[in-house]
Amino acid sequence: MESKYELQDTPIDKMTHECGVFGVWSPKPDSIFAFVYYGLYALQHRGQESSGISITLPEGRIVSKKGMGVVSDVFDELSMVKIVGKSAIGHVRYSTFGSSNVENAQPLEISSKYGQIALAHNGNLSNARLLKEALKDKGSIFQTNIDSEVILHLLTRSDTRHVENALHDALSQIEGGYALVVMTGDKLIGIRDPDGIRPLCMGKTDDGKYVLSSESCGLDAVGAEFIRDIEPGEMVRISEKGVTSKKFTEDTKKLPCSFEYIYFARPDSTMDGVDVYKVRHKSGQLLYDQHKVEADVVIGVPDSGTPAAIGFSEASGIPYGMGLIKNKYIGRTFIKPSQELRERAVGVKLNPLKPILEGKRVVVIDDSIVRGTTSRRLVTMLKEAGAKEVHFRVASPPVKWPCFLGIDTPTKNELIANHMSPKELGEWMGADSLEYLSIENLRTSLAGENYCFGCLTGAYPVKSPEELETAASCRLV
Amino acid sequence: MESKYELQDTPIDKMTHECGVFGVWSPKPDSIFAFVYYGLYALQHRGQESSGISITLPEGRIVSKKGMGVVSDVFDELSMVKIVGKSAIGHVRYSTFGSSNVENAQPLEISSKYGQIALAHNGNLSNARLLKEALKDKGSIFQTNIDSEVILHLLTRSDTRHVENALHDALSQIEGGYALVVMTGDKLIGIRDPDGIRPLCMGKTDDGKYVLSSESCGLDAVGAEFIRDIEPGEMVRISEKGVTSKKFTEDTKKLPCSFEYIYFARPDSTMDGVDVYKVRHKSGQLLYDQHKVEADVVIGVPDSGTPAAIGFSEASGIPYGMGLIKNKYIGRTFIKPSQELRERAVGVKLNPLKPILEGKRVVVIDDSIVRGTTSRRLVTMLKEAGAKEVHFRVASPPVKWPCFLGIDTPTKNELIANHMSPKELGEWMGADSLEYLSIENLRTSLAGENYCFGCLTGAYPVKSPEELETAASCRLV
Amino acid sequence: MESKYELQDTPIDKMTHECGVFGVWSPKPDSIFAFVYYGLYALQHRGQESSGISITLPEGRIVSKKGMGVVSDVFDELSMVKIVGKSAIGHVRYSTFGSSNVENAQPLEISSKYGQIALAHNGNLSNARLLKEALKDKGSIFQTNIDSEVILHLLTRSDTRHVENALHDALSQIEGGYALVVMTGDKLIGIRDPDGIRPLCMGKTDDGKYVLSSESCGLDAVGAEFIRDIEPGEMVRISEKGVTSKKFTEDTKKLPCSFEYIYFARPDSTMDGVDVYKVRHKSGQLLYDQHKVEADVVIGVPDSGTPAAIGFSEASGIPYGMGLIKNKYIGRTFIKPSQELRERAVGVKLNPLKPILEGKRVVVIDDSIVRGTTSRRLVTMLKEAGAKEVHFRVASPPVKWPCFLGIDTPTKNELIANHMSPKELGEWMGADSLEYLSIENLRTSLAGENYCFGCLTGAYPVKSPEELETAASCRLV
Amino acid sequence: MESKYELQDTPIDKMTHECGVFGVWSPKPDSIFAFVYYGLYALQHRGQESSGISITLPEGRIVSKKGMGVVSDVFDELSMVKIVGKSAIGHVRYSTFGSSNVENAQPLEISSKYGQIALAHNGNLSNARLLKEALKDKGSIFQTNIDSEVILHLLTRSDTRHVENALHDALSQIEGGYALVVMTGDKLIGIRDPDGIRPLCMGKTDDGKYVLSSESCGLDAVGAEFIRDIEPGEMVRISEKGVTSKKFTEDTKKLPCSFEYIYFARPDSTMDGVDVYKVRHKSGQLLYDQHKVEADVVIGVPDSGTPAAIGFSEASGIPYGMGLIKNKYIGRTFIKPSQELRERAVGVKLNPLKPILEGKRVVVIDDSIVRGTTSRRLVTMLKEAGAKEVHFRVASPPVKWPCFLGIDTPTKNELIANHMSPKELGEWMGADSLEYLSIENLRTSLAGENYCFGCLTGAYPVKSPEELETAASCRLV
Repeated sequence: MESKYELQDTPIDKMTHECGVFGVWSPKPDSIFAFVYYGLYALQHRGQESSGISITLPEGRIVSKKGMGVVSDVFDELSMVKIVGKSAIGHVRYSTFGSSNVENAQPLEISSKYGQIALAHNGNLSNARLLKEALKDKGSIFQTNIDSEVILHLLTRSDTRHVENALHDALSQIEGGYALVVMTGDKLIGIRDPDGIRPLCMGKTDDGKYVLSSESCGLDAVGAEFIRDIEPGEMVRISEKGVTSKKFTEDTKKLPCSFEYIYFARPDSTMDGVDVYKVRHKSGQLLYDQHKVEADVVIGVPDSGTPAAIGFSEASGIPYGMGLIKNKYIGRTFIKPSQELRERAVGVKLNPLKPILEGKRVVVIDDSIVRGTTSRRLVTMLKEAGAKEVHFRVASPPVKWPCFLGIDTPTKNELIANHMSPKELGEWMGADSLEYLSIENLRTSLAGENYCFGCLTGAYPVKSPEELETAASCRLV
Repeated sequence: MESKYELQDTPIDKMTHECGVFGVWSPKPDSIFAFVYYGLYALQHRGQESSGISITLPEGRIVSKKGMGVVSDVFDELSMVKIVGKSAIGHVRYSTFGSSNVENAQPLEISSKYGQIALAHNGNLSNARLLKEALKDKGSIFQTNIDSEVILHLLTRSDTRHVENALHDALSQIEGGYALVVMTGDKLIGIRDPDGIRPLCMGKTDDGKYVLSSESCGLDAVGAEFIRDIEPGEMVRISEKGVTSKKFTEDTKKLPCSFEYIYFARPDSTMDGVDVYKVRHKSGQLLYDQHKVEADVVIGVPDSGTPAAIGFSEASGIPYGMGLIKNKYIGRTFIKPSQELRERAVGVKLNPLKPILEGKRVVVIDDSIVRGTTSRRLVTMLKEAGAKEVHFRVASPPVKWPCFLGIDTPTKNELIANHMSPKELGEWMGADSLEYLSIENLRTSLAGENYCFGCLTGAYPVKSPEELETAASCRLV
Repeated sequence: MESKYELQDTPIDKMTHECGVFGVWSPKPDSIFAFVYYGLYALQHRGQESSGISITLPEGRIVSKKGMGVVSDVFDELSMVKIVGKSAIGHVRYSTFGSSNVENAQPLEISSKYGQIALAHNGNLSNARLLKEALKDKGSIFQTNIDSEVILHLLTRSDTRHVENALHDALSQIEGGYALVVMTGDKLIGIRDPDGIRPLCMGKTDDGKYVLSSESCGLDAVGAEFIRDIEPGEMVRISEKGVTSKKFTEDTKKLPCSFEYIYFARPDSTMDGVDVYKVRHKSGQLLYDQHKVEADVVIGVPDSGTPAAIGFSEASGIPYGMGLIKNKYIGRTFIKPSQELRERAVGVKLNPLKPILEGKRVVVIDDSIVRGTTSRRLVTMLKEAGAKEVHFRVASPPVKWPCFLGIDTPTKNELIANHMSPKELGEWMGADSLEYLSIENLRTSLAGENYCFGCLTGAYPVKSPEELETAASCRLV
Repeated sequence: MESKYELQDTPIDKMTHECGVFGVWSPKPDSIFAFVYYGLYALQHRGQESSGISITLPEGRIVSKKGMGVVSDVFDELSMVKIVGKSAIGHVRYSTFGSSNVENAQPLEISSKYGQIALAHNGNLSNARLLKEALKDKGSIFQTNIDSEVILHLLTRSDTRHVENALHDALSQIEGGYALVVMTGDKLIGIRDPDGIRPLCMGKTDDGKYVLSSESCGLDAVGAEFIRDIEPGEMVRISEKGVTSKKFTEDTKKLPCSFEYIYFARPDSTMDGVDVYKVRHKSGQLLYDQHKVEADVVIGVPDSGTPAAIGFSEASGIPYGMGLIKNKYIGRTFIKPSQELRERAVGVKLNPLKPILEGKRVVVIDDSIVRGTTSRRLVTMLKEAGAKEVHFRVASPPVKWPCFLGIDTPTKNELIANHMSPKELGEWMGADSLEYLSIENLRTSLAGENYCFGCLTGAYPVKSPEELETAASCRLV
């Protein structure tokens, strides 16, 4: 009975973001360190473990500052934010369990035969391990656990004269889903994987700054106007010569991650022409059409379940209500309640709003179910708060497969949908009914078929690490 | 042109909380330090400047730990949270501009002829300055700027033998709106001002712990069941002899602060028998009845405008939507954008959701208007996001008077409602219409007349500090 | 077997300082915050637990900054050190075991009927407990454990109009050994106890600043010229009207603490006309005269044993050598070695210099012996380093009595000299001989009889707390 | 007139250490993290900027912890110090001006085809820049500015199967003065450059732990017995198979840095069979023999001038005295006095002891003179303290050449000895005479000729970086 209290929480019962990237290029030196600060601040939902910014000073030298924590904790001095430069990139990183330390913070900044290079990435290379072993065999050394280091090694092993060509060589060897922002002393480069799995878009301010951001909400935060999404397999170069674009492979498809729309992205972002809010709202409407139910109130699990709950309310005519209040004051260290207290005090982080629930037939909408444990506790909480009936609706199909393309998921075995039918799951949770959105309706919400549904269907756009390992086909160029 | 960037924001355009208090008494020693930690965490919206906890150890000694910041920042060590005791009180303090330092953190812990005493309070003594001067004349010294110190001086100057009687003497000399939790080596005391202006309620856990909390959401966070509100002018004592109650004055009224319901309290709290959420929801409904409007969507200013927006939507049949996304990642230090960036990038803290707004006639609901500057910026933001019309609705009457009973308000002159009619204000803001909830309808929402509406009507339940100063009638007992 | 390693060391085997005080008054506003910073830095040997500075700003308001740690740790920002003011006082506090926290840091700053007052003190009131009880009975509250708070309560309970008279009243009620610096909005006051037990001196800079300091080395650090020592029972007031002096009692003697010369003070200080270095050097010479010995080398226990070792070497003709090297890099947190490692690795903090010791007959000089444990370990260390003989010489008489006048001593029972004769002690330590300086020779070194030798003889200049408690005669004026 | 006060001091007027290294190998898992902690603590004089420890956990995995500051600041948690392992290495780094950040802290820990490797080094590679360029051309990337990274790149580019052979290959390509400790999952390796310029020795504890340390004082601190110095060009491997030794080159000489004896090393260290204290003491004696002088007192500049002062006193019969008191309380941040205060207050860091100096003819001994500015200020200080005559004696020959073998020196032009004869220098300083130790007498003190006297004579044992750059002969194997 070592410790009743613990510092970190048990594994969060959600799919989790991996990272957010941001970049800016300014036609003349400006206080763009602050610029990236606000951009990252808007992307903070994509990662809260570490934050970092690299900036090219007016004289061409790159300097970096990285640290553990959210943007506003790491960059807490005015002097820092006032730094002037020509170009800058930034990164926020998701807090995975286990080895979290500042060595793994990004951007990664190196010096090489191509001069200084800084790189930040969101995503996962599915052949990272194989490449790393091959590179080690060739004599490379690794100081971090991040894929960016693999990319930089590949890049600097190129024989070409120009860094873009070298980058091209590196990209031809990696597989997976990724968005990269790369900065050298005189240019900013944005890259998106051949399948367009991870998002990246470009914008421009009225004073001529070009901006790259994982999501369009990052552009809004700095007053940049959205220009377009980076295309799958595209490499965009921004420099004094303007913006140029090049495909680094012809073998491209457009299969953006559907879970960005279901859960990860901010509702005010638009990605590849599709509004995140609208997808969620539509999913809520379709959820009702799919499985009608009689009830007194519809509530959403904050924050990601809210748009679907509003949609459900509209389609059904059942009033929408705030049934759950989320505590928003999370500091750097939250000590989780002891088992004993947790059982008695369900409302530390999420509190049910009794006047909305008491004696009511409640429809509760969540964006997805992963392990199921949180949902189960939620149903208990709602019943204890007086709900007469609890109808659980999930605004996505069952999650049955792990992701290896930039999302941190539990193992296949930990995904509850592999063990229980919706009916069984609803009963286990104590809900009066439980229904998922069908894959067809998700496609309808997304208004298209061309998405990665890997975690929902097991059909991935690229080979999995396991397949690659078996093929053992990794050969460095 | 000193600094384009600043660490602190300009005065927040809101009425602001002053404090939250919490207390627990346990029939046997238990890890109640953690208990108060979670209780304060639930009351964090009442103050984020400083946090403090005092605990009576099993042997009867009181120790305290206070610091700047939110609860989870100040109490960041497991060893601390594991501290076992019989009784504990805690406090969170609002960040006022100007002198903020750890000396002013609460609880205030002293040693005296009555032994050790710890005291935490929410509220304001309207005769604090007069009492302080009178006490100084008698030889008292002051080491802080908080009213608690005045109360403790009055208490220890009493001639009575028992601390409760001394407390009675002290309370008979103070005026204002306040809720106090007081702890001695063997008891926990809860006190509410004679007019019941500031809230305080009591609950109990199933293992016999008694809990005091500014709001009922604090009880929920620790799994305590709500027993009742402390009555105006009541002093509740919890000790090994059980719970006893005493009125310290017969001259009581029940006039709780109406702004707790309008803005301060958490929507999941119930105070003096009235659900906060229901009041806000009802206000939204009445706002529509009062001034009908044709529109395509109703949005709320997060987070406090949301329940009224939902109510408005229900009454009007106009669909409810999430039109504004609030960034929830606020760290210890947020560097506000430079003027230039702020003008270009409106969406750093609050981003409009274009798909909801574009080409739409929008009703936007906020809980109140204080200075008006934020509201004006909001209207501009909505129009720039494509709203065809913006109808601003305020879920409370115009704020025209400052509060001196525990709320931090601007001066009368800074309150925009003293300078502009609703019509003028709407025009200045660029809104297509602007309407306030009438005072009658607020009363309807509150289902009663007996509230303090001081800031809305200028009719305060107690004498103002200015009136008291003129009367110059302060005499120590 | 809980913890092999501990954060804090076992009780240091030394008499220990309590505090150092410093003050400055400037004829015109100047950056005197920095001034006090350097003054305290020179007095840092008198206390390393906490540091604090109070300053009167040009407009007359007093502000303070206090914290745990040495001066250079607490005041680590340039902005702070640049603060300009008219007058300032500072304090360093010794780290006692047990309750050490920032509440007990000085100066203590209050507001009162006399306006703002800041006070810092070195020393102990022998009737503090009695006064505190009496004050509590009268209704006073205590927020700290420091004697300064007692003095301030006495002061503000006075009926006189002027703060100096009130201070006079307070001083007439306290007993003990103390040096005080007191600051109001327009003056700086220095006070020394009626017996002159604790030191305080005054200096002046060539641009007219007046300086008060516990030791003259504090004057040197800020370039002030020594004017004179404050007299026993004297109150010196420095203001725009110049320097005035007043005796607050006629019942004065001059009995400075002899241990300041033996161990506490810095060797470059001069107190009451006597050079500290000369006293120690002379004691070393007399030690040889008193007990001649044949040896090859004389070494001192750094740092306080060094001057006596040099004197011994001169008197005896035996060469002086550096036989022990002290590690000077002590950070904020030093983790002491486990018992096992400590036995094997004697040299973590103090390392013997073998080339000096091997095969030699060694005389080792320490300033005093308190518990004896450190000395014993030292003899073992020297023998293991190869010393053929170890002759231990103590440059003071046996410490047999506790001090209650500002020095932190073990209990009488813990003082080894109460249990063993010099011969027994030497044998227990494993030394080939052990001798103390005689009290007569100490008097010779000090060139006078008028000192407090309380801890050596049991004859104190004032009543002990025990005597006072028995008399129970504490009556507040 | 920007800032009167500054955080960092002007360049220290001393040659400066670069680093200290330490390693331990234990026959069975033990709390050796603490072990390295105490070892580094003893080597702290070799570097205070950053501290780091890498440890091989019982299961073979290497983990590291590094930070800015001294050992006791970086490793401030008991939990950390209790870490158990089989082998560990540590490093302290000197604070150079300019780019100091945690990226450059050591040990450097990597993963490679040889598994995990941690490396810490003291010294400088004279062909580091050339190797770095050549490695970059081959595709290597650099994440730090430290030479260790160059060595690790060379190592992992080797084609051999065993890490020792790879290390051998790497060592065959580097030039300069260095001592390395290298750790893999199952062994600890100690390496010293072919000329034995930088020191490294080995010891053993009575429970079988092997220890590597820059100086023997590190062995004393952990209770290890000195075995022997690592030989020039030697690679010592410690593992479960015992201790094996191999020369990685036959082209070796033994030319230890003479300045380690003059100034850098701790006086209680013995290096290559020569006691540091004895060298300094002898130099003091020879200084008198070389230039006799009549005087009343001999003082040393603390701490490094003290042993020579004692030697001078013995040789001359002139009494030795403590003439200068050094303030030993240096925290993390020391704010240096403004120019104005510095001129008036000479005694902030070093205070003259007037009773020793007044009216006396003083001989003052320093270990060396670099820029001369500090010495000049010292003479002024002594004269102002009343010295009638000041005879400056330097216990080393004039420093005329920069070092590129691990010591941070000013440029040739900044070395005062290149601009003034001893006579001129003495006059400029205001001394009544100034003499240096002759190079012949230094050789006598060192009892040998085989030392690196590069900074004194310009004759270096290896090619300088400039010579190497001209030859431009760097070819990777």
